[in-house]
Amino acid sequence: MTGGPAVLVGIDGGGTRARLRLATPEGALLAEGEGGPANIATDAGQAWDSIRQALELALSRAGLSGAEYRLVAVAGLAGAEVSGAMARFLARPALFARLDIVSDAYTSCVGAHAGEDGAMIAAGTGMVGLAIAGGATRRVGGWGFPQGDEGGGAWIGLEAVRLMLCAGDGRAQRTVLSEAVRARLADEGAEPMLWAVGARAADFARLTPLVCTLAEQGDAQARGLLARAGAEIEALLAALRAADGFGALPCCLLGGLAPVLRPYLSAGVQAGLSVPRGHAIDGAMLLARRLHEAAPEAPGDSQPE
Amino acid sequence: MTGGPAVLVGIDGGGTRARLRLATPEGALLAEGEGGPANIATDAGQAWDSIRQALELALSRAGLSGAEYRLVAVAGLAGAEVSGAMARFLARPALFARLDIVSDAYTSCVGAHAGEDGAMIAAGTGMVGLAIAGGATRRVGGWGFPQGDEGGGAWIGLEAVRLMLCAGDGRAQRTVLSEAVRARLADEGAEPMLWAVGARAADFARLTPLVCTLAEQGDAQARGLLARAGAEIEALLAALRAADGFGALPCCLLGGLAPVLRPYLSAGVQAGLSVPRGHAIDGAMLLARRLHEAAPEAPGDSQPE
Repeated sequence: MTGGPAVLVGIDGGGTRARLRLATPEGALLAEGEGGPANIATDAGQAWDSIRQALELALSRAGLSGAEYRLVAVAGLAGAEVSGAMARFLARPALFARLDIVSDAYTSCVGAHAGEDGAMIAAGTGMVGLAIAGGATRRVGGWGFPQGDEGGGAWIGLEAVRLMLCAGDGRAQRTVLSEAVRARLADEGAEPMLWAVGARAADFARLTPLVCTLAEQGDAQARGLLARAGAEIEALLAALRAADGFGALPCCLLGGLAPVLRPYLSAGVQAGLSVPRGHAIDGAMLLARRLHEAAPEAPGDSQPE
Repeated sequence: MTGGPAVLVGIDGGGTRARLRLATPEGALLAEGEGGPANIATDAGQAWDSIRQALELALSRAGLSGAEYRLVAVAGLAGAEVSGAMARFLARPALFARLDIVSDAYTSCVGAHAGEDGAMIAAGTGMVGLAIAGGATRRVGGWGFPQGDEGGGAWIGLEAVRLMLCAGDGRAQRTVLSEAVRARLADEGAEPMLWAVGARAADFARLTPLVCTLAEQGDAQARGLLARAGAEIEALLAALRAADGFGALPCCLLGGLAPVLRPYLSAGVQAGLSVPRGHAIDGAMLLARRLHEAAPEAPGDSQPE
């Protein structure tokens, strides 16, 4: 596994699925593979299985035998910053001759700016901001749900459920939004007032498209919720740019909610947003190339052999 | 288990422990017993074990053999309103000749007003209001954390953590409260910014005494948080009293946070609060007596034999 010519591996692992790409050190794409969820804080064993599956698929598609190559990998993984998660993941058998793990926010930022300095805010189920400038990194938000991730999909769904609950027990007036949430949950066979007991971030996030649809139809309360999410993005951006050296960075708005929330940002912020140059997996592959170029002949050192 | 003279059983089952009381139909206390957690939505099997343990303790202390008596029980259990929880609990072997299950909020209200009409708001880890008037019941709040239970201990702890997170990543200024939360979590060996990942309601609630201590010392931000919790109590009370027939009910403020939050209520609301006449287990026992008196010779009907 540590011998032979190098093959670069870029990995993007999120809470829903893992993507993996193989390329030559010269940058030629060899193949890609996919696997299941790869949040190493939620389930390190599942993440390892997902990545192994993606690796085997990609190797098979490329017609390569992993044993004949030295696989130099960088993975951007959800949950990488949670204490102990990386150690639990690395306690499994080594898949790569060399593996560096960073957060998926980091690879997203590297990919969005093609390795140059820049900032990004990722608005998906969660919400996190990250900026890289001159080798330094700043992270804002994304501390998990419900304590953080304000403005993300889970947060939007949670706020919609709260409006429904308050309307349902008489603490607030019923509204178009509260009744739409109630009807959706009832249609799914749930008792709406009890549906959220034990619900997780992804469950709440499933209600966000309903909020977005109502907002598109002009509902003021739904638009107000999305405007609050937009304000959270602006707060993240302001905090990212507050430090010396970070003030003038270009910023990309990424994630599934980017097109939805962008219109709720102030005109100045919207005009200042950059178009992403790549995805998280591009960032991971770029970092794998740097890792290889820094030590082209280095044996494995990040994982037990 | 269904023969012999009747013994009344009152049960108060919460997320932390179960209490059980035995009495004669004439009202003479026989014994009490205790068991572990008894939230039937969280873990119906554990709740059953806890209640069986409390029953065996109480029978042993009273010098009774359960087989020689007809045990007529009412249990006020946390989680009773959650779909399917009661069925899962009742699928276990029957412990009583007759068993009625209601929510712990209901027995709390019955106990607080000694079976007469009244309202109560219970401020503990959660926050729920319930009122009984002329056979009708109204419930407000208490829909679970984080979507509900606004103003309760878990909510207060969550809000304190959010202030700490925003101060920690530059979205807000550091304050006495944010630094106190950070120091507490660091003292416990946690990385403060990541501590809340996967934390549950009870974990957040453990931070509430810290907020209360700072509030007592005059910290404006901590006092502001408790004032918001007080406003939630007033909103619950207003919603409870909004319906016809419920407007003039006496109201008790119950739960561990009652003495802490009472000073944050408006003078008029404070002056209008009643002193509780009993606890949830008193309410459960009162309901067990009613159940027995309504059908003194009825065989078991609420559980499979």
